[in-house]
Amino acid sequence: MLQDFFKFLKFKSISADPACKEETLACVHYLKEKLDRMDFHTELWQTSTYPTLFASHMQAGPTKPTLLFYNHYDVQPVDPLDLWDSPPFEPSVRGGEVFARGAQDNKGQCFYVIEALRTLLEKEKRLPVNVKLCIEGDEETGSVGLAGIARSKKKELQADALLIVDLAIKSALEPAITLGTRGLVTLEVRLKGARGDLHSGEHGGVSPNPIHGLVELLSKLHDSETGTVMVPGFYDSVEEISSEEIDFSLDEQEYEKLFGTKPLGGEKQYSPLERAWVRPTLEINGIWGGYSGPGFKTVLPAEASAKISCRLVPHQDPQKIRAAVAEFLQAERPHGFQLHVELHKTGSKAMRTDAESKIATVAKQAYSEVFGTPCTCILAGGTIGIASSLVEASGAEPLFLGLGLPDDQIHAPNEHFGLDRIEKGIQIIQKILKGYH
Amino acid sequence: MLQDFFKFLKFKSISADPACKEETLACVHYLKEKLDRMDFHTELWQTSTYPTLFASHMQAGPTKPTLLFYNHYDVQPVDPLDLWDSPPFEPSVRGGEVFARGAQDNKGQCFYVIEALRTLLEKEKRLPVNVKLCIEGDEETGSVGLAGIARSKKKELQADALLIVDLAIKSALEPAITLGTRGLVTLEVRLKGARGDLHSGEHGGVSPNPIHGLVELLSKLHDSETGTVMVPGFYDSVEEISSEEIDFSLDEQEYEKLFGTKPLGGEKQYSPLERAWVRPTLEINGIWGGYSGPGFKTVLPAEASAKISCRLVPHQDPQKIRAAVAEFLQAERPHGFQLHVELHKTGSKAMRTDAESKIATVAKQAYSEVFGTPCTCILAGGTIGIASSLVEASGAEPLFLGLGLPDDQIHAPNEHFGLDRIEKGIQIIQKILKGYH
Repeated sequence: MLQDFFKFLKFKSISADPACKEETLACVHYLKEKLDRMDFHTELWQTSTYPTLFASHMQAGPTKPTLLFYNHYDVQPVDPLDLWDSPPFEPSVRGGEVFARGAQDNKGQCFYVIEALRTLLEKEKRLPVNVKLCIEGDEETGSVGLAGIARSKKKELQADALLIVDLAIKSALEPAITLGTRGLVTLEVRLKGARGDLHSGEHGGVSPNPIHGLVELLSKLHDSETGTVMVPGFYDSVEEISSEEIDFSLDEQEYEKLFGTKPLGGEKQYSPLERAWVRPTLEINGIWGGYSGPGFKTVLPAEASAKISCRLVPHQDPQKIRAAVAEFLQAERPHGFQLHVELHKTGSKAMRTDAESKIATVAKQAYSEVFGTPCTCILAGGTIGIASSLVEASGAEPLFLGLGLPDDQIHAPNEHFGLDRIEKGIQIIQKILKGYH
Repeated sequence: MLQDFFKFLKFKSISADPACKEETLACVHYLKEKLDRMDFHTELWQTSTYPTLFASHMQAGPTKPTLLFYNHYDVQPVDPLDLWDSPPFEPSVRGGEVFARGAQDNKGQCFYVIEALRTLLEKEKRLPVNVKLCIEGDEETGSVGLAGIARSKKKELQADALLIVDLAIKSALEPAITLGTRGLVTLEVRLKGARGDLHSGEHGGVSPNPIHGLVELLSKLHDSETGTVMVPGFYDSVEEISSEEIDFSLDEQEYEKLFGTKPLGGEKQYSPLERAWVRPTLEINGIWGGYSGPGFKTVLPAEASAKISCRLVPHQDPQKIRAAVAEFLQAERPHGFQLHVELHKTGSKAMRTDAESKIATVAKQAYSEVFGTPCTCILAGGTIGIASSLVEASGAEPLFLGLGLPDDQIHAPNEHFGLDRIEKGIQIIQKILKGYH
């Protein structure tokens, strides 16, 4: 089984890198052939980006429910390569952990779903429910391809429950299912001064410096004392949530050990996981302007820019929030500059699953049994952009789940995933299949 | 003469680009041979970077004064190449202007100095004063080479007046000499949060975002209403100058036409050229952190950085100002981050020439005669780092002069210099030689 997993991991399926096109396509064909051998009906759905692999096993028949699993076969880029202790596409096992790009996100999690189905079929010759798999190829670049075709695949995707297996648990000993994710909007801001770069000797103190303007403008987005986002209307539709079913506890010392910083960001009056899960945030994800190379260049740059994203909670409308941020930036534009705000069109709402739904109940039970300890409910601060398209197309009750851990180093050098978690994953998926029938 | 100028311009003497080493060395040899043919005594001074060409013509004898001319044969890089209307190292004349990298800075200005000497020698077989030339090869990369050896060349450099021919006049019809330059200190600031980059979904609102910290910190450097630098002690030794001999007038509409922005930077209570010439400034020359590529990456970066420079006026001590800025940044460091401030060791004081000095008087007279209109005195906002080393080594009274114009596009695509200015330059230098005897 490990050999087969390694084969999957070796494909350089980096959707963001055009040079990896051939290997990314080879990767989806590898999966298709594997599912063909398992007697799944398979289809490759062509999209504007990489194909989505759709596979179904409907032998349980129309009286049985249908579970739709979502995974992705593409992975993040591997830079900076020199920080990897072993090559990212040559999987290696150290201390029970498999190190490779995609080991967790999402090849590892995809692998145990398929292996759960394969071993169950091998042993029992049948599945207790109808199963559909939807495995896409550009999750790491925005799920543009699948999002573009999901609506046209309503019949194929129709299901009772949608299991998005791309999430994490709280810690190795604390099983959890995820009842929701935050939404997302992004935008870019550019402040322009002079027509071209100028010499900061001749023009310093004369021509307005866009970096000065930008830091002044961006510093107004938050109240530096309280961490509150200062955009009018930003919190308007946010509900104060006292969600008893959600476990908001966080070991702050463990957080500091893992990430090298205390959890000091965001709004001071909320706890760290309230801030990550049920409060909206505004983050500056990139800033640039002028000279950033070695040494010094006394340039007074013509422009300076920043990328901004907002994570949204239920009831916040992506379009309204995006417009409110843009309006605030325009209203606070510093004198002497031109301001360009580019609103990115993609935007996702926050998602929530009812803790009392059938799929949540069955999944909780499965996690509790496999871990031998009660499964809690958590939320995720991140966004799974494709989730709303899939919910809409499938008509299914969604659930976010997985076996990621905070220190798996996904999107970073030395990504890894535990062999024990592949085993647990197989057991959990099989218990969900049996429990949901 | 033009053919010889073109030959000089064709050498790709980009000191910042190691690939241009051979051509840069070929360039200085071309100059050496030219001066050899003019019966100058020539020496190539080896330095830690490119050689400095030293040339002298001492036949006027010990009873006559010695003028030391400073120029440089290296040029700026040419990026972005696609914005050039003709190739940067294939000089072409359009509308009486020579277009090429270095056409003005500093090959054009170097060329008319040498041609003034050559044609005077050709006509009169002698020079009225002793002349020394010091032509360096890494001005555009910080004059590290010449600065490192200047002190050991006191005997060779000894002179009565030092003419730094790398400056500009106010406009094509307004001759001016430059009575001073500003000093310079530079530093770099880095704010660190988590150990590595984090996902802004999971960690947004939890882990402190160094870009937020940096914009908050940097926004405190200036009062956004008045433009005043807020660093305590920054203005302590600055004298309010009401310099009657300096022409501070600026055509603000012309400035806007040239540079595409109104002169709105800096301290509001001073005029633009007071801000550029007699007021110190603090400029952020670069800022970077997080993702700046195409599309979007929801990263919460581990760190964010900026490069900062201060231009200094007379009586400001570079070391003190540098330390004051660093102290301010540390004192205002936002909570939850580590702050690293790197103080760059190089620093230059501001320079001033007495308007009544012999060299200033002679040069003003020469400019007035050649332009047929009174020459004014101006200052420069920039810094000529090597000036203080040369003043110290030569014991000479310095003067900054030249025939640059604000729209010559030095350091930018389509750099150009007028043929009329080469002619005027030759006449001015010859008049100075004759006037100073």
